[in-house]
Amino acid sequence: MVQKYGGTSLQDTDRIKNTARRIKGYRQKGHEMIVVVSAMGKTTNNLISLAREISDSPPKRELDVLLATGEQISIALLSIALNEIGVDTISLTGAQCGIRTSNLHSNARIEDIDTARLKAEFKAGKVVIVAGFQGINEKGDITTLGRGGSDTTAVALAAAMKAPKCEIYTDVDGVYATDPRVVPQALKLDRISYDEMLEMARLGAQVLHPRSVELAKNHQVPLEVRSSLNFNPGTQIIGEINMEDIRISGITSEKNIARISIARVPDKPGIAYRLFKRLSENEISIDMILQNLNHENANDISFTTPTEALGEALPIVEGFAADIEAQEVIVKENVCKISLVGTGILGHGEVAATFFETLSNLGINIEMISTSETKISCLIDGKDSDTATRTLHRIFFEK
Amino acid sequence: MVQKYGGTSLQDTDRIKNTARRIKGYRQKGHEMIVVVSAMGKTTNNLISLAREISDSPPKRELDVLLATGEQISIALLSIALNEIGVDTISLTGAQCGIRTSNLHSNARIEDIDTARLKAEFKAGKVVIVAGFQGINEKGDITTLGRGGSDTTAVALAAAMKAPKCEIYTDVDGVYATDPRVVPQALKLDRISYDEMLEMARLGAQVLHPRSVELAKNHQVPLEVRSSLNFNPGTQIIGEINMEDIRISGITSEKNIARISIARVPDKPGIAYRLFKRLSENEISIDMILQNLNHENANDISFTTPTEALGEALPIVEGFAADIEAQEVIVKENVCKISLVGTGILGHGEVAATFFETLSNLGINIEMISTSETKISCLIDGKDSDTATRTLHRIFFEK
Repeated sequence: MVQKYGGTSLQDTDRIKNTARRIKGYRQKGHEMIVVVSAMGKTTNNLISLAREISDSPPKRELDVLLATGEQISIALLSIALNEIGVDTISLTGAQCGIRTSNLHSNARIEDIDTARLKAEFKAGKVVIVAGFQGINEKGDITTLGRGGSDTTAVALAAAMKAPKCEIYTDVDGVYATDPRVVPQALKLDRISYDEMLEMARLGAQVLHPRSVELAKNHQVPLEVRSSLNFNPGTQIIGEINMEDIRISGITSEKNIARISIARVPDKPGIAYRLFKRLSENEISIDMILQNLNHENANDISFTTPTEALGEALPIVEGFAADIEAQEVIVKENVCKISLVGTGILGHGEVAATFFETLSNLGINIEMISTSETKISCLIDGKDSDTATRTLHRIFFEK
Repeated sequence: MVQKYGGTSLQDTDRIKNTARRIKGYRQKGHEMIVVVSAMGKTTNNLISLAREISDSPPKRELDVLLATGEQISIALLSIALNEIGVDTISLTGAQCGIRTSNLHSNARIEDIDTARLKAEFKAGKVVIVAGFQGINEKGDITTLGRGGSDTTAVALAAAMKAPKCEIYTDVDGVYATDPRVVPQALKLDRISYDEMLEMARLGAQVLHPRSVELAKNHQVPLEVRSSLNFNPGTQIIGEINMEDIRISGITSEKNIARISIARVPDKPGIAYRLFKRLSENEISIDMILQNLNHENANDISFTTPTEALGEALPIVEGFAADIEAQEVIVKENVCKISLVGTGILGHGEVAATFFETLSNLGINIEMISTSETKISCLIDGKDSDTATRTLHRIFFEK
């Protein structure tokens, strides 16, 4: 089986020793084990700070050489800790583990895993400790995988080795129906499907990166998110759950969103297309889009973007609005996207109705709505986010 | 040309930027350059401390994985700093640079350098930044080269690439006739031969490890030891200097030595051999040996060993003394080996005479003497070391 331990499970030598004892416990049950690790605690941030002291825009290839040391320190120390308590191990960097990636530094994709060394080390009876988040490209250069990289490494190794299970250890007990920092009594989910987890992850549940969930789904790798601080069962992330049933898996809330509206856009074909093409050419990320016909044969077009992208997006939108002779551009910052995630929601009108009704009863204005097979999202004022989350959790989960 | 910068030249981001500017200056003169670096400041010691918090005897393979990160951080940051000021660089780990070593972890020997990548990067116009102290063995595992490893990497690369010169940058201006901490007015040497430098290094001059000097001698790589803090000329370490001349290159003093004597050893053949065989089987390092015939057909055997080895050596010697029915074992700690290093010393009796006379005039008792083609060493009481060094420097260098 594959286990992945994050930075908090390795933040100092005491935690590393604890994690080693935990791994020994599993090993004694006879599992063939691959253990994937992240960098210790704040190591990655400290390394980035060093680079920033030298340059505002360090070359990404060199940043990858730098950051890869974080996980390399972790594999060595964890391997030392395991040897100290009598577990025979070997540590492997991404390159040594045969993790071949694309050339895109700082955000490489795993292309292939050469499992020869892994298999040889299994045969020699070793627990294999692998540096997450890193690989090697065709030039022999070190690459890193970007956000959620260590989870991705773990899932990819589980897929390549056809491991029966991939456990992701973190500092929470599993996946919650909503953010436990906002709703302390938030329900921990026992099981969730890949698609629901994907939607939850995309909508801001921090516990797993969507990329690793996608990979697990594509290779049908059973995932479990668990805490490294106790032995409670975690959350299983698995294939299809019976699609006939209605199942609500969670409530997510994404903050730091800005809404940009262009008022009174002349009603001509292709205008929305030209706007979003121009924004995407500038790599500005767009999420919800709303276009509604106004009086006087003019449209209002609204869309959302992360607040951090506003500075770049606004001049482009204003230039575009002037070109097409729209009336004005209106920006609203600090809006929030609150979402209900689950399977079969759209097929059961009463779920959507309850969702909208709950917000309405709270006096919260819904500014935009978007839906997909596995979610309903509403854009609301950022100040209402926590109240809405708490109340929705009570209505849908605390029955 | 090859340049090597030590930990003090890279101890923080400001020093790294300074070092980068320095390298840019040389680069602008049109040199093809390989820059070998050590770990920043105290990084290596900090990593060792982390490992020791986990285990008293970490597996050497894993310790190598851990320690190699120190130099990897340095190459990335120096490369970032050089790019920031417009120098096109690429960083390479030992493995990426093709440095193939023996399997002996923590003390590997360089066996071969595959220069293909280096040559390709030169062709692409890059300054190549290489992680010192590390390589890769035939299994693809990371190895480290032990003490003086980064100097050894630099010299080996200079030899493999047939570089015209290898400059070793440190925090002193070059090689001194004696330790400037003891003799502030110590003479800086402009030139010294490989053999003299080797003797100086073996006798405790810290500036270069004997291993790298040996490698430079074998491949006739011209070395220069220089300061990275100023632009003063350093010390050239080169091939033969005219052997006909007498040339005194320095005075070294090694402290922390213990003398062990076995009194009244029965005068039978093979006894000394058996003693030193037993010590070497236990990997106890022996330096000077003295055996002198006593009255009553018994010998006294004395030898020196580093103080740190005393705890291990003493029970062995005592066991041996009991076996052969010697009278007693006498230990003297805190003795010091003071040496005069130079070419042709033994052929010129007056040099040795002046050396002994100086010590005698100071009232210093000489406990043992050993000589070689390029040195005379005397064992004296540790408390007399600094006085002897200062006076000998005055007699031989301050004329």
